[in-house]
Amino acid sequence: MRILLVGGTGTIGKKIYWRLQEKHELISAGTKSGDYQFDMTDVGSIKELFKQVGKLDALVVAAGGGPMGPLEQLTEEQFYEGIRNKMMGQINLALIGQKHIQSGGSITLTSGILSEDPIAMGTILSTVNGAVNGFVVGAAGELFRQGIRINVVSPGIVEDSIEAIGTYFPGHHPVAMDKVVNAYVKSIEGVRTGEIIRVF
Amino acid sequence: MRILLVGGTGTIGKKIYWRLQEKHELISAGTKSGDYQFDMTDVGSIKELFKQVGKLDALVVAAGGGPMGPLEQLTEEQFYEGIRNKMMGQINLALIGQKHIQSGGSITLTSGILSEDPIAMGTILSTVNGAVNGFVVGAAGELFRQGIRINVVSPGIVEDSIEAIGTYFPGHHPVAMDKVVNAYVKSIEGVRTGEIIRVF
Repeated sequence: MRILLVGGTGTIGKKIYWRLQEKHELISAGTKSGDYQFDMTDVGSIKELFKQVGKLDALVVAAGGGPMGPLEQLTEEQFYEGIRNKMMGQINLALIGQKHIQSGGSITLTSGILSEDPIAMGTILSTVNGAVNGFVVGAAGELFRQGIRINVVSPGIVEDSIEAIGTYFPGHHPVAMDKVVNAYVKSIEGVRTGEIIRVF
Repeated sequence: MRILLVGGTGTIGKKIYWRLQEKHELISAGTKSGDYQFDMTDVGSIKELFKQVGKLDALVVAAGGGPMGPLEQLTEEQFYEGIRNKMMGQINLALIGQKHIQSGGSITLTSGILSEDPIAMGTILSTVNGAVNGFVVGAAGELFRQGIRINVVSPGIVEDSIEAIGTYFPGHHPVAMDKVVNAYVKSIEGVRTGEIIRVF
């Protein structure tokens, strides 16, 4: 398959990259790295990316973040940072991407455990993860008519993030990288659609 | 209790209003009706509302919508309509409201079935409902420290909406209005927090 991977150099993305390149034609895109550079918060930049990349069998997004902070101090502007980035960045990639993915293809987005199993200071990520999950559940039926599947991988804190941010996730059980990568492979090469693939 | 109800003239809101006014001091606010008029898409207007209303025991929001349309045609701007309204409208009411709610009090927001059981043309609502659910799950732990509970009622299509919009919800079983109103009462007068109270 011809697959576009957005965020192929992140903690999870680089593991996806190494797995997928074994058997697929993999194109990577990111803010500063990858085969193509673009800005996922800018619809014009996303359109330009797909124009350059051409027809695809799968789109995988393992990119996007949002700010953390104590609930009492969170501002509307901080929410919109997360909205523009992890939420609408991914949604816009899917909305625009649907026109460039062949029938039989798939879209795989990334949310995360915090919409269901929260941590202190994580409310913005809980919110945008919930939004991405809702989008995928909502979009699947209409994408099905176009012959396109869509799923979202919702990982817990992964092994490779424990050293950097594990202290914010007390008692959260680290998820093996291979298990997370398998969820993306299942979404791309499997048959399900409209699924929140929980890996935690 | 002294309760602020936002959206007390909507399909669900007016039924909440009639139940709550039996035993509570109820203040209503809305875009065009209620004791106070304000704009839930404007943080300045929300701040002014809470300044005028004063200290509260509970905030209930049964307001907010978003556009519907075929997935292939949805634009970023349509998503932002739903984000500013049902998503960030409610989230901003909660963020600002937390400073005006007494310890022991509660916040109750409204999402809806579409984040879990979708319909055609409903992807924006699936997305913003998922976001509101995620926000409530994420915020509960930190609001608990302030002595404030938070829940979200996620209703299915209600009996009173069947005539107007039932055709968009094929096979969805209409929910009795009393059952939906009970969910709000449980959130306000009960003990749970961080719950998605599903009524479908």
